Amino acid sequence: MRADLLQRAAARQQARAEAGLLRRLRSVTATTAPWIVLDGRRLLSFASNDYLGLAGHAQVREALCSAAARWGVGATAAHLLGGHRAPHAELEAALAAWTGRERALLFATGYMANLGVLDALLQSGDVCVQDKLNHASLLDGARLCGAELRRYPHGDVDAAARQLAACPHAAALLASDGVFSMDGDVAPLARLAALAQQQNATLLIDDAHGLGVRGAQGAGSVAQAGLDARQVPILMATLGKALGTQGAFVAGDAVLIDALTQFARAHVYSTAPPPALAAATLAALRLAQQGEHLRARLQARIAQLRSGAAALGLHLLPSDTPIQPLWLGSAVTAQDWSSALEARGFHVPAIRPPTVAQGQARLRIALSAAHGESDVERLLDALGALRQHHAQPAPDAGA
Amino acid sequence: MRADLLQRAAARQQARAEAGLLRRLRSVTATTAPWIVLDGRRLLSFASNDYLGLAGHAQVREALCSAAARWGVGATAAHLLGGHRAPHAELEAALAAWTGRERALLFATGYMANLGVLDALLQSGDVCVQDKLNHASLLDGARLCGAELRRYPHGDVDAAARQLAACPHAAALLASDGVFSMDGDVAPLARLAALAQQQNATLLIDDAHGLGVRGAQGAGSVAQAGLDARQVPILMATLGKALGTQGAFVAGDAVLIDALTQFARAHVYSTAPPPALAAATLAALRLAQQGEHLRARLQARIAQLRSGAAALGLHLLPSDTPIQPLWLGSAVTAQDWSSALEARGFHVPAIRPPTVAQGQARLRIALSAAHGESDVERLLDALGALRQHHAQPAPDAGA
Repeated sequence: MRADLLQRAAARQQARAEAGLLRRLRSVTATTAPWIVLDGRRLLSFASNDYLGLAGHAQVREALCSAAARWGVGATAAHLLGGHRAPHAELEAALAAWTGRERALLFATGYMANLGVLDALLQSGDVCVQDKLNHASLLDGARLCGAELRRYPHGDVDAAARQLAACPHAAALLASDGVFSMDGDVAPLARLAALAQQQNATLLIDDAHGLGVRGAQGAGSVAQAGLDARQVPILMATLGKALGTQGAFVAGDAVLIDALTQFARAHVYSTAPPPALAAATLAALRLAQQGEHLRARLQARIAQLRSGAAALGLHLLPSDTPIQPLWLGSAVTAQDWSSALEARGFHVPAIRPPTVAQGQARLRIALSAAHGESDVERLLDALGALRQHHAQPAPDAGA
Repeated sequence: MRADLLQRAAARQQARAEAGLLRRLRSVTATTAPWIVLDGRRLLSFASNDYLGLAGHAQVREALCSAAARWGVGATAAHLLGGHRAPHAELEAALAAWTGRERALLFATGYMANLGVLDALLQSGDVCVQDKLNHASLLDGARLCGAELRRYPHGDVDAAARQLAACPHAAALLASDGVFSMDGDVAPLARLAALAQQQNATLLIDDAHGLGVRGAQGAGSVAQAGLDARQVPILMATLGKALGTQGAFVAGDAVLIDALTQFARAHVYSTAPPPALAAATLAALRLAQQGEHLRARLQARIAQLRSGAAALGLHLLPSDTPIQPLWLGSAVTAQDWSSALEARGFHVPAIRPPTVAQGQARLRIALSAAHGESDVERLLDALGALRQHHAQPAPDAGA
């Protein structure tokens, strides 16, 4: 007799519970950034990707409401079947202009954008070379399209070169996060671009955590590295981090966007996002473009946290982005620190396997322009107090 | 030298253009259901999946705005990392209660829900048996998870039985749309449920186009067929059709939902949808539950269209749902009819390969409670006029 799928899933879940790695879905019952209420307690949150504090901005909310009055809520159809509305088109044009690309195409989520792009461009017999720490959606995209997935050690451009050189005849995509979501460091973008050109591979950068935060006018990591559409032909980023809304886009030359319109199944076979959400995102984009003061404030918080942590003898992973991981190694230790911080009034989730590799658990401290100097001061005080009772393990070579 | 991915995509696009199958992304510049403005012309739309006319309902818009005032726009994080907010939890509870299931879990889109479920439950060595006309996301989910995909001829439960029997030892998922998105017919749900139980396969029904429209209180095709969570353990449906917003959910026993919370990567590794959107969806759900008058109005339009089309000698595919396909066979003919209708002031998109099989192109006429009797009358007049100049080909055996 065949195995029952739900019994098998339950057994797998039981194994995860026994390893102490069970996820728990907890519901936030109120929020006023950077504060949230969780299980009835008000916590100072360092878990949000709202890096510029725009998710709750009055202009973004008002753009949502006034567009909903005009457009209703749902788009009622896929983009190609009447669901593409003027706010989508305006947002796509603004995203293209912001990132210095010819065109842009919206997707409902970053996960769908990455799956859509990889599945549209790659097929069995091709090779997809990726950084080992790339976002799950890039790995899933490679699984979906059936190309050979080769993962190189984090940030190791020489290893990426060897992997491409090992498949000299296969059509090749080289894909990397711009800013790594759980590490906060920035990919060696210029070297990846040079490698892609030398190897005739197409470079995709997922700048979900760089857009709005890095580069002049917040145009992202790729803009900061001075790389144009010839050097980074596929630029993907999301709208649910620094822009504070939801969704994602891919930007590039018309040839790319036209091909995605035809072949990206995640775009073709999915209801378009609410036009009102596109209008809200456009408002957020304008605020982000003009948000040098927000980026300056965010950078001040990053510097404050890093120098404060150093003074406490705490090791943050190397990062000049809002993602500041405190490396702890074991999942149990990370969970202990997270729980101890929560008891002191802070929400700083532990990031554990399989989100990160075994032995690489950490606290992911996410900073935002919504944080004041006193917020980071409080967190540092709490970390200092914790340090009295819980030693931070020495980072291993892999960290 | 390796092939260039973008050049290859451009060549593939050129081939599609030469076959007359290019998709064109057109932007709607205004809408007041059931009317839209496209390329500067006001058109009566029969292209929307807003079957109950809720996308523009004042209570749905107001719920969006008032929740945005309280929650901001974006959820700022994945569900498991602080993005899960009270409106998500309330909506999940309401969806579970509506569909008569123990629990429900939100996904950002239907595409992600289907990929998430199949990838969480299936693995290489398993078998996934699917109706040939299932939605693209179910097919993509099977590709992603690496199970063996076996597709049976549309609605053929005996063929499904043979496919399951041919793999007696493999863990098995049997998956079908409830209402088929491009055909409008309803799956043989009771027979599929009986087959799944007999074969110890797990049954998944994607009721994207049935929820809100069919069954008592609009609880969907599965409720209408009288099938409970034991008989249909995995019920998936979307929020962007009859509910008029965006997103999707999976409903079932706690064991299923708990497993998805742990293992559905499309849920774990994606920013939660805006809490305000969940609040808007909850308002739409209440309206849909109490929407017997909307369903009655919709059924009247369906009956009106079908009897009117029969009187004109036009063949609609068998369907008692809002999806009423006018079969035309060749893609060129379908495009001609769509263009001729547009010239007369109607938006009725042609559905062409690869969305449907070669030789199965059609107009997909989608009806809504937003349509008045005179709207359908006008469409019938236009179809009657068209019929003078363009004969409808006789449906072939495959139609």
